[in-house]
Amino acid sequence: MQQRDFLYQGKAKTIYRSDVPGTLIVRFRDDITAFDGEKKDVLTMKGRYNAEVSAFFFRMLEENGIRTHFLGMIDPDTMAVKELAMIPIEVIVRNVAAGSIVRRYPFTEGAPLDPPVIVIDYKDDTRHDPMLNDDLILALGLATREELDRIKAMALTINEILRAHLAERGITLVDFKLEFGRGDAEICLGDEISMDSMRLWDAETGQSMDKDVYRFDKGDVVAEYSRVAQRIIT
Amino acid sequence: MQQRDFLYQGKAKTIYRSDVPGTLIVRFRDDITAFDGEKKDVLTMKGRYNAEVSAFFFRMLEENGIRTHFLGMIDPDTMAVKELAMIPIEVIVRNVAAGSIVRRYPFTEGAPLDPPVIVIDYKDDTRHDPMLNDDLILALGLATREELDRIKAMALTINEILRAHLAERGITLVDFKLEFGRGDAEICLGDEISMDSMRLWDAETGQSMDKDVYRFDKGDVVAEYSRVAQRIIT
Repeated sequence: MQQRDFLYQGKAKTIYRSDVPGTLIVRFRDDITAFDGEKKDVLTMKGRYNAEVSAFFFRMLEENGIRTHFLGMIDPDTMAVKELAMIPIEVIVRNVAAGSIVRRYPFTEGAPLDPPVIVIDYKDDTRHDPMLNDDLILALGLATREELDRIKAMALTINEILRAHLAERGITLVDFKLEFGRGDAEICLGDEISMDSMRLWDAETGQSMDKDVYRFDKGDVVAEYSRVAQRIIT
Repeated sequence: MQQRDFLYQGKAKTIYRSDVPGTLIVRFRDDITAFDGEKKDVLTMKGRYNAEVSAFFFRMLEENGIRTHFLGMIDPDTMAVKELAMIPIEVIVRNVAAGSIVRRYPFTEGAPLDPPVIVIDYKDDTRHDPMLNDDLILALGLATREELDRIKAMALTINEILRAHLAERGITLVDFKLEFGRGDAEICLGDEISMDSMRLWDAETGQSMDKDVYRFDKGDVVAEYSRVAQRIIT
């Protein structure tokens, strides 16, 4: 597969067309950002650890009947994916209260959320990703009722699959963010599942094993991403 | 009925106990505030216009089978109400895009929202009333699934009743805010339905007939509240 035109550059990934119609090439870059883009750095090897973990989880989800955009790896930091018509929402699944939910509402950091809580934000940097609800999603025409129900059901199933795998490796899946798109008239999981998009705590020590290490200067980010990636994929 | 202990002071109303168990006294004050309390004034007679319109709508809703806290008027600015265990959420029903929804999302000011959009905020001034969704309401234990469904159904029924009455008087019900509480094991409408809690536009001219006159210095607030109250109750 050959890389063709540049299509889109996000905060941590760049998307290109390929020579195969309907197939895109995603490069996971070493750029890392936090706090709505206010903090940014380049951390060598970060891209490939995220690509590796994403590929691992996409394969696992496909084996469990979840449709994803993943087709295969081209390079350690580059994957081939199905082109989707992306839905501009960020679907956050929370098993434990942490981060913005604790700042915004009277939840105690570390409190279990059972059943899991789904929060959906409107993906729009210029508006700072404001939170949505079902009525707003429908009124804005972002998704149909059926699509939204399907997305939520998929998000909860994905949560159970990731959570079980991570728990076996002594890692608590605190929360994570998913993005979905329309492909072949069916909702597919897109984007990534990585240390940038999941909040992971060591089940024994409670230590951060994700982008919070970067956000709050908790240690050597790349070393941590490398360790976590190994724990997840082996 | 006699006024007893002071119970609670909100931004525009003061609540007292009465000598009748389970019955409270609500005084609609002339205080008016906007922008999270940053703008504030005292406008003589404002309280009684809001009390008058609230009483009128509470009676109309009761006649239409909606349980409210309203018991009767004591003075032009003071009503007797059933004591409710208030649920700390603000239920906003929107028929037309205006205000925060236009600032926050890509809606065009004045665009009809059909079906109406319900947005629910967490009533907490120190947190600036953050928006909720169903999962968060349940996780925070603010209401049960059944209560939340009941509240939304009541809000939509109330919307149809108010909307029809106002439309007959040439007034567009753009949006409005409701608060609910638990009384005798049943969800009741509490708080007020007034020019402070509704966004009203003259159906012919599109002019504001509500607190936006105060927020954005669009004219003589008390004169406008007086005119609107007359149009609504006659």
